[in-house]
Amino acid sequence: MSKEITSRSEDYSKWYNDIVRKAGLADHSAVRGCMVIKPYGFAIWEKIRDQLDSMFKETGHVNAYFPLFIPKSFLSKEAEHVEGFAKECAVVTHHRLMNDPNGKGVIVDPDAKLEEELIVRPTSETIIWNTYRDWISSYRDLPLLINQWANVVRWELRTKLFMRTAEFLWQEGHTAHATKDEAVQETLTILDIYAKFAEEYMAVPVVKGIKTANERFAGAEETYTIEAMMQDGKALQSGTSHFLGQNFAKAFDVKYLTQQNKQEYVWATSWGVSTRLMGALVMAHSDDEGLVLPPKLAPIQVVIIPIPKPNEQIDAVAEDIMAKLKAVGVTVKYDTDKKKRPGFKFADYEMKGVPVRIAIGKRDLEKGVVEVARRDTKEKYTEPLEGITDHIQELLGHIQDNIFKKAYDFRKEHTTEVDTWEDFQKAIENKGGFVAAHWDGTTETEVKIKELTKATIRCIALDQEEEAGKCILTGKPSSKRVLFAKAY
Amino acid sequence: MSKEITSRSEDYSKWYNDIVRKAGLADHSAVRGCMVIKPYGFAIWEKIRDQLDSMFKETGHVNAYFPLFIPKSFLSKEAEHVEGFAKECAVVTHHRLMNDPNGKGVIVDPDAKLEEELIVRPTSETIIWNTYRDWISSYRDLPLLINQWANVVRWELRTKLFMRTAEFLWQEGHTAHATKDEAVQETLTILDIYAKFAEEYMAVPVVKGIKTANERFAGAEETYTIEAMMQDGKALQSGTSHFLGQNFAKAFDVKYLTQQNKQEYVWATSWGVSTRLMGALVMAHSDDEGLVLPPKLAPIQVVIIPIPKPNEQIDAVAEDIMAKLKAVGVTVKYDTDKKKRPGFKFADYEMKGVPVRIAIGKRDLEKGVVEVARRDTKEKYTEPLEGITDHIQELLGHIQDNIFKKAYDFRKEHTTEVDTWEDFQKAIENKGGFVAAHWDGTTETEVKIKELTKATIRCIALDQEEEAGKCILTGKPSSKRVLFAKAY
Repeated sequence: MSKEITSRSEDYSKWYNDIVRKAGLADHSAVRGCMVIKPYGFAIWEKIRDQLDSMFKETGHVNAYFPLFIPKSFLSKEAEHVEGFAKECAVVTHHRLMNDPNGKGVIVDPDAKLEEELIVRPTSETIIWNTYRDWISSYRDLPLLINQWANVVRWELRTKLFMRTAEFLWQEGHTAHATKDEAVQETLTILDIYAKFAEEYMAVPVVKGIKTANERFAGAEETYTIEAMMQDGKALQSGTSHFLGQNFAKAFDVKYLTQQNKQEYVWATSWGVSTRLMGALVMAHSDDEGLVLPPKLAPIQVVIIPIPKPNEQIDAVAEDIMAKLKAVGVTVKYDTDKKKRPGFKFADYEMKGVPVRIAIGKRDLEKGVVEVARRDTKEKYTEPLEGITDHIQELLGHIQDNIFKKAYDFRKEHTTEVDTWEDFQKAIENKGGFVAAHWDGTTETEVKIKELTKATIRCIALDQEEEAGKCILTGKPSSKRVLFAKAY
Repeated sequence: MSKEITSRSEDYSKWYNDIVRKAGLADHSAVRGCMVIKPYGFAIWEKIRDQLDSMFKETGHVNAYFPLFIPKSFLSKEAEHVEGFAKECAVVTHHRLMNDPNGKGVIVDPDAKLEEELIVRPTSETIIWNTYRDWISSYRDLPLLINQWANVVRWELRTKLFMRTAEFLWQEGHTAHATKDEAVQETLTILDIYAKFAEEYMAVPVVKGIKTANERFAGAEETYTIEAMMQDGKALQSGTSHFLGQNFAKAFDVKYLTQQNKQEYVWATSWGVSTRLMGALVMAHSDDEGLVLPPKLAPIQVVIIPIPKPNEQIDAVAEDIMAKLKAVGVTVKYDTDKKKRPGFKFADYEMKGVPVRIAIGKRDLEKGVVEVARRDTKEKYTEPLEGITDHIQELLGHIQDNIFKKAYDFRKEHTTEVDTWEDFQKAIENKGGFVAAHWDGTTETEVKIKELTKATIRCIALDQEEEAGKCILTGKPSSKRVLFAKAY
């Protein structure tokens, strides 16, 4: 099974694709740029979604649903937004097909042309702020803390499963506030939720930071981001939270009556994470044998496999372990399929990243033990049946911690401070990872550095300390290092 | 508040619209035919979705996600399917906008025309069966029991919130089986889940039955349905489960290797319920004061309102009741909003269909009682604080049962057996509801009856007994009554 996977060292990109397809996460579809999310991949996405959803709800957000289509004219209402989003998109121009009078099949009915074209949403600020105008009239209606789970479409020419596809699934939060401070606070609250989710559930360490003006969301005044590092040293933007100022309120004329009886424009935020997180999850932890999943997001946390084949005694022990683990909230599968041999199953569950495997053999049982194998370190050992439930529960916690620590250590090793252009180029080219360097703060320099090295400024870390220095390219003064990296 | 609602007797359709909008369930959007599902409405939909999802999973189904777009040519592959679905749909013809060279705004880039148009899915049989071809090769791959929660688009000219909109949310199950028997059994398993959900959760009694050939899903060999009755006596098709035979397997060339080493076409089913269920929920139970919700689907099951305004003692009692109810799984809201008066709140929560209201007043507290009001019967009474948790829990069960019973009795009263054409016309015209009558089994007669009376055959009930009779229109022999009704 594992032999079917290209190794990371041979071809990182092919390795990623192999895992996504062979672990049963996703596949390409007959529609260019669109993927099919397969059941096992979707089960992981459901865990991501449910956990984030509960974190949003705990902080006072509610879900709603807005239309898939956006009238073309809406996109033009916010000047920068249209530049960012109105380019590569799916345009609906007609609303009917008809039988082809010259042959078989169907053709577009030319009489069914829409008066105004509809765009399949690339993001929903415009349609939502057009709606908020009807929902907001006074300070009593604020804040409005709404999220939606939806599909969006951005026409991409070069696609990569989960990382960049024409259609993807995401959540987009759109909140409305009476004051600037409250909106900025909301943006940061969400950034913290994203970071907490990435680190505690995905086991992926992230840097919280601010995007430069050049990398900002089209229509935002400030974009906050969490940036993760993949095993090839590239950065992956994993979630963004935007302070939109009053831009959309002005574009869609959304005002509210203040407590002092004045009409004022509403302050806005928007924020989102997408099925891209699935890509981050795969790339951050997996190895040449397949997927490695953090236990908190694994659809199956423990698999029990009978050796060499089930018998009554093995069944009884397996079912006892299962019942006990289920009782403490652990997801267990007992694989009794007789058509497949244990060796095949071992490789299959390794490929699928199941964190813990318990093998139950007749001889082991006579000694009162079972074999436990952990996916992350590939360690195998025998463990007494007595106390196995406690042991497995603890082990799942250790695995979650260990996966995080491994990714954390990797990031630490691959974060370099440099002070000269030569060192910068070397670090970006040879070592990869994050490079912390001084920058003069201009878009011009940022663009030039990208042209020369393909590295972009991932963010200005929120916890970055002030420190006088000189821009690596221009030598102009700088007060803070920023994080550069090549990125997905 | 309630005065804003048109009464049922005055204008049933307007009454429905008033409730949907004023209870905060949904509203029209800027995009013709598309609705916005508002937070309170979406919270109900989440409860519907989560409950159904767990019922699907308990019976071995898993979720996945397939593309939003369907290549135009796919629709033509199943001959009947294209007739049913390729007509009114959203057609994507271009993938780019550009700045208008003659002015402001953006226009469709004529150079970005797609080679083949894409249809926004009206249903996903074609794209899914095209995918199943790659997933199925042997009997070991079967059955495939997959469901997806998704948005779909069918261009509708006359729309009605939740009941008929261009875009709606739904689940669509698509299963693949080795044998015909197994596929038929799957179709019935799902029908039972739909019926159980409608009756036990929505508190809406349904008739399980078979659709006539004329009313069958485009591409199905047999369509099973659950039919509910609304308060105006009209029928509402609330869920359908289709046995698709080998039609889609043949159209998309999906074969499997049997245990006997033979290549055979795969057997299929598909089944779905949609946000239309929200319409059924509103129409089946609500009254002239607003929404009436069955406790099992109410986002807020109990609201506690302080009279005349909160004080420490009232707060303490309310929080104690809240904690105790939450501990037994009841959703409670304590409304401490000082900007609104109790009378306003009473009307507001009545409008929103909150099943139980507890009012806590100072004087009542002195006597050790609170006021309890139930939404379904509008009864009010005082109840001792002691034992209030048990009382409320029981009450919620009674309300659930009572709402179902009311709908059940209404349906019973509005189901009429007739044996002559005259009685049939009278029943359909004057009394409404279901009319059980004999029919000669031909599409011709069915269509004629529809032309003459607007009544359609809703279904042939699964539990309908054999009984010799004569067709009400043609007098030809019939072996079973079928259910006629005017329908949504």
